[in-house]
Amino acid sequence: MELTGPEVKDYIRPFLVKPGKKVQLKKYDTGWAHNEFLKKLGEEGAKGLLTQMLERDRVALAEAQELFFASRQYSLLIILQGMDTSGKDGTIRHVMSGVNPQGCAVNSFKVPSSEDHAHDFLWRYFRLLPERGMIGIFNRSYYEDVLAVRVHPERMEALPKKIGPGSSGFWEGRFKDINAFEKHLRRNGTIILKFFLNISKEEQKRRLLDRLEHKEKYWKFSAADLAERQYWEDYMKAYGEMLSATSTDSSPWFIVPADYKWVARTVVAEAITSTIGGLSLAYPEVTDDQFSQLMAAKKELLGE
Amino acid sequence: MELTGPEVKDYIRPFLVKPGKKVQLKKYDTGWAHNEFLKKLGEEGAKGLLTQMLERDRVALAEAQELFFASRQYSLLIILQGMDTSGKDGTIRHVMSGVNPQGCAVNSFKVPSSEDHAHDFLWRYFRLLPERGMIGIFNRSYYEDVLAVRVHPERMEALPKKIGPGSSGFWEGRFKDINAFEKHLRRNGTIILKFFLNISKEEQKRRLLDRLEHKEKYWKFSAADLAERQYWEDYMKAYGEMLSATSTDSSPWFIVPADYKWVARTVVAEAITSTIGGLSLAYPEVTDDQFSQLMAAKKELLGE
Repeated sequence: MELTGPEVKDYIRPFLVKPGKKVQLKKYDTGWAHNEFLKKLGEEGAKGLLTQMLERDRVALAEAQELFFASRQYSLLIILQGMDTSGKDGTIRHVMSGVNPQGCAVNSFKVPSSEDHAHDFLWRYFRLLPERGMIGIFNRSYYEDVLAVRVHPERMEALPKKIGPGSSGFWEGRFKDINAFEKHLRRNGTIILKFFLNISKEEQKRRLLDRLEHKEKYWKFSAADLAERQYWEDYMKAYGEMLSATSTDSSPWFIVPADYKWVARTVVAEAITSTIGGLSLAYPEVTDDQFSQLMAAKKELLGE
Repeated sequence: MELTGPEVKDYIRPFLVKPGKKVQLKKYDTGWAHNEFLKKLGEEGAKGLLTQMLERDRVALAEAQELFFASRQYSLLIILQGMDTSGKDGTIRHVMSGVNPQGCAVNSFKVPSSEDHAHDFLWRYFRLLPERGMIGIFNRSYYEDVLAVRVHPERMEALPKKIGPGSSGFWEGRFKDINAFEKHLRRNGTIILKFFLNISKEEQKRRLLDRLEHKEKYWKFSAADLAERQYWEDYMKAYGEMLSATSTDSSPWFIVPADYKWVARTVVAEAITSTIGGLSLAYPEVTDDQFSQLMAAKKELLGE
């Protein structure tokens, strides 16, 4: 069930963060897939190919999800992280529309409530984990607790000073908590896929301006996004450290080049589809005893 | 916002239960739409037409839902009830696949937990109501508390004898509680659509046998379904009383003929699509103040 196995197709392998790798985000190309195959095709060729792949994956995903749901063996937790405008919402819409909503629950995490802050940082997420058979999507997640909160320590819940963010090894402690939490989930049947939608600061500017230039998109613009943009470098540093510390064999991160939406969506769709496809799931089998019961039921019905 | 208004298209109007109507289910045709127009077309013609309508509705619904989500003015609560095999799961899959799962949450209610039973009968449902902008689907609902529980009083939570099911006016009290609860929801922006998928006992027999005759469907069969089937008449009586008592102007029931899956799915899709379409929603508008802020933001970004 390791994601480094053959189910990760060659196309998406380059985006996997190898466990232990020291990630420096400036070395990652946001504007293009750092994949020789795609570069050879040129933009138009690659776009055509990827759009086809996405469509094929959407169909495959809808089918695979039915089996995933019926077999009720695993849960799938999909985590989407990224700067504002990086395309988290659009990725969910384009990749997951087509999936039976009965088997898919999306949770978008906004500013924590005071009740959330009165608990440990994993509490609000724990309660919304997908049950067996379900695909759960976290649009933002507990990773915000080592990202937004790290950039803005004043947003953190009140912790005793002795164990707070000023204490030694605080962030390493959080990374360890997250890794242990995810290992626990994996041991109990939850498969985890984590995607960082990696856009450039320039592409964010274009997307924000787009919202400011089209009346029908005004409502999407938030002044808070512009304020956060001032902290771009701090975020990249926090992302880099987080990605370096929490990409594990069993729950690796994908750094998804996201300046082109059709690249990002296809990478995510491929990773999800190939992961479910790699599980060798089957519809629940009946035991001999159950079979006898089924045949007795059939006799009873036919004899009505 | 009344559902009896022009937004309920002629096609689905015959399936609406008029408030105060005394419903006798045996008078409702499960096998066919009691709609003169469809009868004239014959089965093949009607199936072709309805399949086209369903496809058109799915596309319209996906679009309407984006606006519903963005405007965040109302919530939509869709309640599906029906006997085992009546097609609740399939209806959700066929009508709602295509909708962005970020805007749609499905809850399937199974046997209540002891925690549920330690609360009033609406408690477990209350907690899972859709927030503004969301479509919430209840696959079974608090109506089970006047259906399954009425047929099997031993399944009811322990209530003091004085206020329990043996007390005078108990079921009328539950109906009043439900009507008041739904009025409260309506007053606070939740639109409610309730569908009873009405199949015949013969059609259930066919569907159960189908599960017993195809190996790949064995897992769908539950011996409990066969046991419940013995109580068919009791259920029809409980459904009839419930439908008579809880179809209100603001939250009416649809009795959906469900022996043909393509009839049931199209009726449900039409009702949902025309309801959202009738709300005259718009993307959030910006005030003059907000507009000035947007233009300031634009200037700031362009000046970077």
